[in-house]
Order: sequence, then structure tokens, then C-alpha cells
Amino acid sequence: MSWNRVAVVGAGLVKFGELFDQSYEQMAAGAFRAAAGHVDKGFDPREVDAVVVATQRGTLWGQEGIGGNTVPSALGISGVACTRVENACPSGSDAFRVGAMMVASGVHQVVLVIGVEKMRDKSSQEGLLSRAASGHPVYNRGETAPVLFAPFATRHMHDFGTTPEMLAAVAVKNHHNGCLDPYAHFRYEVTVDQVLSSPPVCHPLRLLDCCPQTDGAAAVILTSAEDAGRYTDKPVLVAGFGVATDHPYLHEKSTFLALPATVEAARRAYAMAGLGPEDMDMAEVHDCFTITEILDIEDLGFVDKGKGGPATLDGTTSLGGRIPVNPSGGLLAKGHPIGATGVAQLVECTWQLREEGGERQVAIRNGNALQHNVGGRGSGVSVVNILTRNR
Amino acid sequence: MSWNRVAVVGAGLVKFGELFDQSYEQMAAGAFRAAAGHVDKGFDPREVDAVVVATQRGTLWGQEGIGGNTVPSALGISGVACTRVENACPSGSDAFRVGAMMVASGVHQVVLVIGVEKMRDKSSQEGLLSRAASGHPVYNRGETAPVLFAPFATRHMHDFGTTPEMLAAVAVKNHHNGCLDPYAHFRYEVTVDQVLSSPPVCHPLRLLDCCPQTDGAAAVILTSAEDAGRYTDKPVLVAGFGVATDHPYLHEKSTFLALPATVEAARRAYAMAGLGPEDMDMAEVHDCFTITEILDIEDLGFVDKGKGGPATLDGTTSLGGRIPVNPSGGLLAKGHPIGATGVAQLVECTWQLREEGGERQVAIRNGNALQHNVGGRGSGVSVVNILTRNR
Repeated sequence: MSWNRVAVVGAGLVKFGELFDQSYEQMAAGAFRAAAGHVDKGFDPREVDAVVVATQRGTLWGQEGIGGNTVPSALGISGVACTRVENACPSGSDAFRVGAMMVASGVHQVVLVIGVEKMRDKSSQEGLLSRAASGHPVYNRGETAPVLFAPFATRHMHDFGTTPEMLAAVAVKNHHNGCLDPYAHFRYEVTVDQVLSSPPVCHPLRLLDCCPQTDGAAAVILTSAEDAGRYTDKPVLVAGFGVATDHPYLHEKSTFLALPATVEAARRAYAMAGLGPEDMDMAEVHDCFTITEILDIEDLGFVDKGKGGPATLDGTTSLGGRIPVNPSGGLLAKGHPIGATGVAQLVECTWQLREEGGERQVAIRNGNALQHNVGGRGSGVSVVNILTRNR
Repeated sequence: MSWNRVAVVGAGLVKFGELFDQSYEQMAAGAFRAAAGHVDKGFDPREVDAVVVATQRGTLWGQEGIGGNTVPSALGISGVACTRVENACPSGSDAFRVGAMMVASGVHQVVLVIGVEKMRDKSSQEGLLSRAASGHPVYNRGETAPVLFAPFATRHMHDFGTTPEMLAAVAVKNHHNGCLDPYAHFRYEVTVDQVLSSPPVCHPLRLLDCCPQTDGAAAVILTSAEDAGRYTDKPVLVAGFGVATDHPYLHEKSTFLALPATVEAARRAYAMAGLGPEDMDMAEVHDCFTITEILDIEDLGFVDKGKGGPATLDGTTSLGGRIPVNPSGGLLAKGHPIGATGVAQLVECTWQLREEGGERQVAIRNGNALQHNVGGRGSGVSVVNILTRNR
């Protein structure tokens, strides 16, 4: 009993990277042009009647409280309704969910979901990711993102025998995929030895276990399933989604062997879609660190708990494997421009389901794909979206 | 042809003020308790299946990217879906609109919309409002909020003969109303002379022409119109809403005699509700400055363009007038805790339509009320919500 009321009719992004040469607004406009250009039967920008902007822009620029209201003007569609959704690392995926509900409610007909983030105009120390993790309990304790995820890695190693080589296998796989994705920030192979000899960041995570800070923007255009045929003969439908929260502070965590927000978000999304992990042909998941992807593929039900490391080593999640994970290169190679990340993952899922994945195309058997983010204080929020090409 | 698919079944807030004694999370929990306590037939917090948090918290705390994910845990409902909506001064009113669409889409059954903001834990210079208006074009130019609104006042005076006394009449009226609202930050009368002799801020705006910086939180509980009877026999329905953007920078403005985002948001909301300004019994509008309320009542269609000043002087917008505006005291007296402001206005509209307004109750003839915010870069975004007690 899938939902399937809302369709993605166009999806595109700008090449991720260090985009010093593009303003925030230029990146947004580039992503919108890419998504509009992807609409098979043509698209007039004035058809957009609502925009959902996923961004954390505020801190980087020393500003806040502008909502998304500079974006429509930059896209040439000033006047249109515009809402900013910010939900930590899942900002883009939650904006997509909100956009889908705007269409499903009957209020808006054509919704542009756009994620955009400038991460590199300040130093890593002063930039968005470092500020994203900071807060009053954190400012005082140095709980940066690697510090928040490292204990999950050590505990996983202790209980399940996960090894540094298994972590490294995530980076090796995703960098390989990134080489095949012209939109990825990093497009070079890495070896297990390179990962294991990269500088330590927070034990056991090393530099190549960590995603980079990347500028980028991505966009999708949503309309009702009924109206989709006006735009494309290959609509990708929103089958279901789920969001869940967890206690935000580490001392409140019930486990360091899973991210409960992911488990619950996935349960909700699968229930809404009437589908299970076995029905997915591929997934884009939140690999902010190598350990995160291992937790993700367990928490999403692709492999048994504790088996994420061996499954990565044996190729289960590689492009030709049983469940290809992060064919785009993932956060590790494609990059992690926060507000754009989830939207870009949905672009990849859309393209894969339409078999437009080029050299990194996976086998589409069931016609379903899953997208996942997790983040926020203590990984306390997760969003899962499920797309399908099946009517 | 009104929408009327979604109902407010509970609405409450904490007393606004300088709440140094309450944490952000405590304020949120207080607002939730107030809204839940307002549900006539009782409410189990676990019935909430999604939360929309309106907040700009980020900057004040030197943090960003936590979404709303600390809020459910603070409310005792960790696990629930939670989305942060930030849309500048209309954050709360846009969060309400998003929450209404979540219910209307059929995805969520009971949605808590909660606005919460701590404004006073830092100095005015370093606090949220000063940062809210700042940004790269603005950091360099000192375009604080009074600087952005003052040119609208001088132009209104030049073209329409609006006087400082007319501006002052807004402050006098709203402070009077605030005296009757136990939740207002400022509860004292002011006179025209006091306003006119208060310290200049940015010509022609003086201190008492400006809203204060206020801590606060407010919450409403939404469910479908069909399910509302489980919670109350006095549901207030969402008749319509509208959002519009405008070019964000002053040099791009088409006029200094109106806020085009408000005009368009109102047009959309009236069209969705099948109602017009003449059908409203009262309105809560965005009086961040006295001139703003004068622009608002014109742009919302309550009085003709240019007549906002005289209409305020002659009592048209007073509690017993033709269209009472800001019976709660408005931003000028009740306060402006950004994320909470719009939600608190909707609480007031709900209470007024249920005739629970106490000493400040207005006459309910048609059964409809309007809520309005405008803000963001160059007042480039506005949200209007219309509530009704008519089925």
C-alpha cells in the first residue's frame, strides 16, 4: 500500500567542490537550471508555485533569520512562496518530505525543493561544519562531529569485531564510485593502505574516514502523480518517508551500536511505502564517516546488525553488489554541503531509477531506491525517503 | 469555498518577557503544557506524531544545525518526527502553515507547532535581532531592522501626510491592549507624548516605535477537521493561508509605500479561504515598528492605502473598533520572540474566535480572524493565515 501521490519530474545539481567562484545564489540558480533542464518535456520556471530551501547558511555568513527569501529572487521567480527547512544534516531530505506533503495537501501544484550550502568560504575551524556541531554543551567540551561518531566505531569494533580495514573499505568503495560521478568533489581512488595511513583525527577515525567540507547545490521538482505526465514519461514517485528523533545528548543514548533515529525513521518509511529493505535496488546513505555507513546499512535493514563491516569488505554494497550503497560517491567522495546533501542523494536515486546513472548505473530490478540522512545533536534526527518508478 | 480541512484543537503560550530563569527547553515545555492543557477533552502528549519547531535559536547560542531535534526530548516525546522551519520573522506563521499541510496531506494525524526563542541572554548588540538583520551586504552597512523600516515611514509621511502622532497612536493602542493581556511582556500604558519624547532610534522611529527583544514560546495543536471532535467542541479551522516573497534588497524595491510580500500573501490567503478583509473580526499583525502596523492594515486591505495613520488615530483598529488589530498587545507590547511570535499570534486568534479573550475580547460577528507576519531581508517574505470558527 504505497503512497505514490507525488512525483519527481526533474532533478539536477551543480558539480560539488570548492566553489569559491560561485556565490550562494549562483549555486542555487545552477541547481535550479539543472533540475529544470532535466524535465523531459520542458519546464517554465514560472510554473513553480512554492520553494522549499534546505540550508544552514546562517552561521557561515554570520547571519541568520533571512529564511530562504533571497533564493526565489536569485532564481528569477521572486514572489513565489518560499520556506526554509533546517534539520541539521537531514535538512535536504526533510525539505523534500515537506515539499512532498505540500503537493499531497493540494495546496501547491509544483514545488521546487532546493538545497544549497557554502562551506568553504571560511576555514574549517570557523566554517559551517565546526559550528554546526557546536552549542552550549559542546562549545565547552570540544565535541566536534568526529568526536561524536568515534565512540560508535570503538564500540562496534569491541562488540562485533569490526576492523579498521572494514572502515577503510567504505572509503575505498565510495571514492571508487566518486570517480564515476562527474558531480563528485573528490574523484580519485584511495586504497585501504592510504586510508589506514592517513592522519588520525579522533581514534579510530582517520582523515580518509571523514567526509570533506564541500560547496554545492541540488534541486528536485515535485508535482502530483496525476500531473507528472505533463512533464515526463519517466516520473519517479515518492513511495514513503519517515523522520524520527532520538535523545540529543550522548549521555542519554540507549546504545552506541546503532543510531536509533535511523532505525525508527526507516521503520516509518518502509511502513508508509509498504516496502522493505529487500525491495530496494540501491541506497544513498549518510556516510559522514566510514563508521556511519556501516551503522546505516545495519540500521536500515540491508544487513544484520554487526555485519556492516564484513558486508562492505565482501562487496555487498559495491556497484555490482546485492545492494549498491552510495553509487554517487557518498558524502565521503561526492561531498557534504549540508543543506544540499540530502537533495543531491535524491537526485542520484532519481537518476538511478531512470537508469541515467552512466558509468555508475546499478541494476534496477525492483524499481525502488532509498535515501537516508542522520545528524543533529547526538545524531538525534534521521530522515529516510523511499522513491519508486512503479506506479 | 474555504479549505477548512485542518483544525486547531489546543493553543497556549508562556508569559512573554525576560525569561532568564527558564532555559530554551523549559520555555518550549511550558508552551506545550499550555497548549495541551487548553484541549477541552484532554490530551495525551504521546498523541503527537509530528512536531514543527519555529526557531532562529542558532545565532544566539553560537550554534546552528541542530534543527529542532532537542525539542521533542525536552517535551518528553523523543522519537517523534520533528522539523525546524525558519523563515525570518514569519517563522512561526510559516511553521503553522507547514504543520497544516502535514495534516492535510494525510501523513500526520496530530501535529504540534511550537515556536520558541531566547532573545535576552545576550546584549541587544550581540543578540538575535541584531544578527537576524545582519548579513554580508548588511554587515558592511549597518542595516539594522530600524534602518530598514525607517525609509518606509518617511516616504509614507511624505506621500500620505502620516504624522508622528499617527505612528505613536499605534504604540498607545497596542500598549493599552498589552495591559489587558496577562501574557504580554510590557503591561503599562504609554501616551502619545511619551512616544514622541522617547529617544530617537532612526528618524522618524523612536524607542517606543520599536518592539522589544523578548523571550517566549507558544504552541498550537493541529489535527484534521474530521478528528477535531475527539479533542474539543470548539475547533478553530484553518480557512486559508498564503506566503509570498519579494526582492530582498532595498535597492530592488518597487515601492516604499507598501510591503509587496504582504499584499501578495494576503491575496493568496483570502483566495484560498474564499474570504476578504471585510469578513475578518480581528487581526494580529506584524507591528515590529509602528509604521509596520500602518503599512500592514493597508496592505491587508483593512483600510485604503494611505489611510492607516488616520484609521489608527480614529480608533478603527482599537478593541471596540471596526477591525480590532493586535488585541494581544502586538509585537510592540506583547513582545517579539521571533520563532514564537507568529504562533503566539495564532494562539490569540484562536482564543478570540473561541471568545476566551478575557478583558480584551473583541466582538465576534463573522467568525474569522487573520494573522500576519512580514520580515526577512528587506521584508522580503510574508505569511498570512486565516482562521475561522465556521464549519
